[in-house]
Amino acid sequence: QDSFFKLRSNRVFEFFVVGVIIFSALVIGAKTYDIPDYMLTLISWLDSGITLFFLVEITIRFIGEPNKKAFFKNPWNIFDTLIVVVSLIPIQDSEMALIGRLIRIFRVLRMVSIVPELRLLLNSLLKALPQLGYVILLMFIIFYIYAAIGASFFAAINEDLWGDISIAMLTLFRVMTFEDWTDVMYETMAVYPLSWMFYLTFIFLTTFAFLNMVIGIVVNVMEN
Amino acid sequence: QDSFFKLRSNRVFEFFVVGVIIFSALVIGAKTYDIPDYMLTLISWLDSGITLFFLVEITIRFIGEPNKKAFFKNPWNIFDTLIVVVSLIPIQDSEMALIGRLIRIFRVLRMVSIVPELRLLLNSLLKALPQLGYVILLMFIIFYIYAAIGASFFAAINEDLWGDISIAMLTLFRVMTFEDWTDVMYETMAVYPLSWMFYLTFIFLTTFAFLNMVIGIVVNVMEN
Amino acid sequence: QDSFFKLRSNRVFEFFVVGVIIFSALVIGAKTYDIPDYMLTLISWLDSGITLFFLVEITIRFIGEPNKKAFFKNPWNIFDTLIVVVSLIPIQDSEMALIGRLIRIFRVLRMVSIVPELRLLLNSLLKALPQLGYVILLMFIIFYIYAAIGASFFAAINEDLWGDISIAMLTLFRVMTFEDWTDVMYETMAVYPLSWMFYLTFIFLTTFAFLNMVIGIVVNVMEN
Amino acid sequence: QDSFFKLRSNRVFEFFVVGVIIFSALVIGAKTYDIPDYMLTLISWLDSGITLFFLVEITIRFIGEPNKKAFFKNPWNIFDTLIVVVSLIPIQDSEMALIGRLIRIFRVLRMVSIVPELRLLLNSLLKALPQLGYVILLMFIIFYIYAAIGASFFAAINEDLWGDISIAMLTLFRVMTFEDWTDVMYETMAVYPLSWMFYLTFIFLTTFAFLNMVIGIVVNVMEN
Ligand code: NA
Ligand code: NA
Repeated sequence: QDSFFKLRSNRVFEFFVVGVIIFSALVIGAKTYDIPDYMLTLISWLDSGITLFFLVEITIRFIGEPNKKAFFKNPWNIFDTLIVVVSLIPIQDSEMALIGRLIRIFRVLRMVSIVPELRLLLNSLLKALPQLGYVILLMFIIFYIYAAIGASFFAAINEDLWGDISIAMLTLFRVMTFEDWTDVMYETMAVYPLSWMFYLTFIFLTTFAFLNMVIGIVVNVMEN
Repeated sequence: QDSFFKLRSNRVFEFFVVGVIIFSALVIGAKTYDIPDYMLTLISWLDSGITLFFLVEITIRFIGEPNKKAFFKNPWNIFDTLIVVVSLIPIQDSEMALIGRLIRIFRVLRMVSIVPELRLLLNSLLKALPQLGYVILLMFIIFYIYAAIGASFFAAINEDLWGDISIAMLTLFRVMTFEDWTDVMYETMAVYPLSWMFYLTFIFLTTFAFLNMVIGIVVNVMEN
Repeated sequence: QDSFFKLRSNRVFEFFVVGVIIFSALVIGAKTYDIPDYMLTLISWLDSGITLFFLVEITIRFIGEPNKKAFFKNPWNIFDTLIVVVSLIPIQDSEMALIGRLIRIFRVLRMVSIVPELRLLLNSLLKALPQLGYVILLMFIIFYIYAAIGASFFAAINEDLWGDISIAMLTLFRVMTFEDWTDVMYETMAVYPLSWMFYLTFIFLTTFAFLNMVIGIVVNVMEN
Repeated sequence: QDSFFKLRSNRVFEFFVVGVIIFSALVIGAKTYDIPDYMLTLISWLDSGITLFFLVEITIRFIGEPNKKAFFKNPWNIFDTLIVVVSLIPIQDSEMALIGRLIRIFRVLRMVSIVPELRLLLNSLLKALPQLGYVILLMFIIFYIYAAIGASFFAAINEDLWGDISIAMLTLFRVMTFEDWTDVMYETMAVYPLSWMFYLTFIFLTTFAFLNMVIGIVVNVMEN
């Protein structure tokens, strides 16, 4: 166990693992191009090799861990183990094949679990979220009320944009990103000439709440 | 009155009220989907139940209030009472039905009046507005002047975009959000080749004023 | 002169002037609607009245000024006098009529010269500009270089977007606002497949310079 | 050498060089317009003159430099020398002509190497980049994973947008700038109705990472 622990903490070993992850990312990228059949066979062999390597690596990490209980308390270890275990399941029918492809892609995320600086950065990003809890709740209430109004009044005008409350929320998110929002507006203004008020108040409210969120993060970061 | 006051301040009671509000929001959402007739009947019953519950709740709050005068000094209480009273009015003709639907949707806003953290957040958002008073006035003057120029010179080019000063202001807001603004510009440039100056100066002025507004809020928040 | 000075500094007089400016703005707005002929005649009478009032007002200000030289050192006084004097010139041919209309619109700007808070706000906005001098120069150099490249290589692809260096700069400003920029890019990528690098580096550089400008203003405001 | 050193540090000489650079920029701009043949001949003469002037100028700078080794340690000197040397190479075939044109355009960048304030500004901009290293890496990982998913699942829907992983990354950058992103989304939603989750999570992640980057720069600038 001691030698495993040493290996695990070894910088060279870490760089090698990062190298394999980058290589697996390149393999995933290569698969999206039109490549000859013999390359596909080669890639499938490489894929198995990477899966095997990750299995060995996670085993080394687990054996090298002095406190076995602590191993599964670290969410990154659980994530790594899950990725490896699911990769091992043999895939036959086509629906599972899609999930298998997704799992292989998510292996790139192991980069974050390996490089300490990225792990730190992500943690600090996630720590900012709970402070925003009530602003996000307020934003959701604004979206829900406007989507309810939109779905109640505009559904007859354009079923694809305002058909039900969930479609309406997607349309409102589109309006919030200013993506062809005037097309959406002109369409409803033809029936309800005052509906520009609906869009303008929505844009003001969400922009204002969004600004407040950003400023909230800035002030929080400043204080620490 | 004392027992009413206790009930009113009870955490369990508060959670129950929040639960009913969320439930009423879900009912509103459900109505926007294509649902069978018996569900619509059920929803209409639920609706009456929610209205009744809110009537009881506001009465409890009112009786539980030691100082009756203070009750109607709180704008949230006035808002709550209004929502409940208007819900009670029986609706017959179709025009009123629309308003009835709106009132039911606005009941979701009661969430803000019930959850103290949201009330606090909204108050702090609103407090930021008056400090922005003069920037907003300046923004409005910029919009008005550009809309007057646009409506005077471009109305003959595109009646739908520059027909009168209020339509022109809506078009300018569209330009400010960068929404297909070059389509608007190319159209007027075909007649007035130098009209790109109109759009560019407008974008610079409003972006600059908007930035100033944001920075104003940041600095204000920092100081407190 | 003393009584003129008193009148000039009178709050009631100031409010009255602001009232006339708002009224002149409403008159300008009304003209953009389809209005009957007798209204147009009325408006033209009102217009003359406003011009006369502004003439009287500026005269009062001038007479009320203890130090006549200082009067024309204040840029706002020069602006006010210019607006009034140009309004007085009788307009006959149609080209001048356009300028006459513009002058009437610019009268709304007198609002800024009258309300001290707006004057202060505008001054503080203008004071921020010179600090940005070199960032704006750098931005201009970036625009010029990319426009020169665009006009040299893409002019044959789309004359309307890349015809010469000034048209190319307008197109680049459009790209900077993300306005249908992919349409512009896909068109040139059909001929030069690597031209996405042109757009992406341009977007990165200008976004980076713009961010820097904003941060520069924030830091400057913070320090004062 | 001493007199060369004096000349080099002379303000008048510096202004003259800046003048020639601005003139060379104007010449480049003029070439993008439809100009008569004799003007083209004139411009080609002016071009040779500018090249010669820059050769003389860089020679003066080199001779005037007390420490010859330090001359080529300054990246701006290397840049200047390269621009001048490449301009001297006679161009015959058409492919090289394009590069020749590019070099002439890049001469405008010499403005940055001459004006000390611009050089300082650019240095401070570049200094901000390495601090952002890990956020940029995280952003790239997000892009790569989403592009891999997009290219794996949506390639059959639209070859032009999701054909391979590099095209998919360009499409995702487009989505990040909100440029007609709903068109991209509606297309894939017709096949995979839940694919809105792909776009929304991508937008949230990248907006969040971008905000973090901006705030990171603000905090860094504040501290210095
Ligand atoms: Na847009
Ligand atoms: Na667009």
